[in-house]
Amino acid sequence: MAKNYSFLETGKVSAWGNKAFFKDQMGFTGMEFSLNTIPAGKGNDFVHSHKQNEEMYLVLSGNGIFYVDGEEFPVQEGSVVRVAPQAERAIAAGDEAIVYICVQATADSLTQYTMTDGVIVDTKASWMKL
Amino acid sequence: MAKNYSFLETGKVSAWGNKAFFKDQMGFTGMEFSLNTIPAGKGNDFVHSHKQNEEMYLVLSGNGIFYVDGEEFPVQEGSVVRVAPQAERAIAAGDEAIVYICVQATADSLTQYTMTDGVIVDTKASWMKL
Repeated sequence: MAKNYSFLETGKVSAWGNKAFFKDQMGFTGMEFSLNTIPAGKGNDFVHSHKQNEEMYLVLSGNGIFYVDGEEFPVQEGSVVRVAPQAERAIAAGDEAIVYICVQATADSLTQYTMTDGVIVDTKASWMKL
Repeated sequence: MAKNYSFLETGKVSAWGNKAFFKDQMGFTGMEFSLNTIPAGKGNDFVHSHKQNEEMYLVLSGNGIFYVDGEEFPVQEGSVVRVAPQAERAIAAGDEAIVYICVQATADSLTQYTMTDGVIVDTKASWMKL
């Protein structure tokens, strides 16, 4: 496997386990991310904040409740929540198990992105040669 | 909506559009991320690399082919690919549409994470008081 990338099969989303982190396993240097499932009727045992990392939650199936800074709101498939480091947050499943990913990255660390960071190269993948 | 967070409903994963970016819309400062769908039999029109951002691809449904630095391999639901900035990469759908997210963050920018960056606070969400 080339050092420029790493690849992992995590299986069907519906079969993901309780929580798995991937930074160290895959060699990420700019982000940590986790795949998470909380069974129906259960939730995080504690509220937490962060020192310097922003978090992004993306719900992939099921439903639940998101707590942030004293507010609570329902989340479901397709819900995205951005949380600043200092925000106090927690998540719980509703009447279905909730499956979500969480990505953390250093707040204020992204200086350029997409069109300003990407470079189109001349190399062609197989499907571009057809 | 408190400034410490932002919230968005993107709808069912299976109904996501071609490509949507969320950094500016939601106020992310440490990452950019996109939701993507490529129809069956189609693929990126070009190969690209990045100047300073690492990318993470997570496939949520369907199947396809991932190209990186002259290699190609199949991807499917649950496949995760980490790509260093300089890697040349592209993705195509296979015989089904492929739905995936892509997150970019500045390579080498994450200095602490998870247990070293998280802080458990005394606040309780509603389900912790039951």
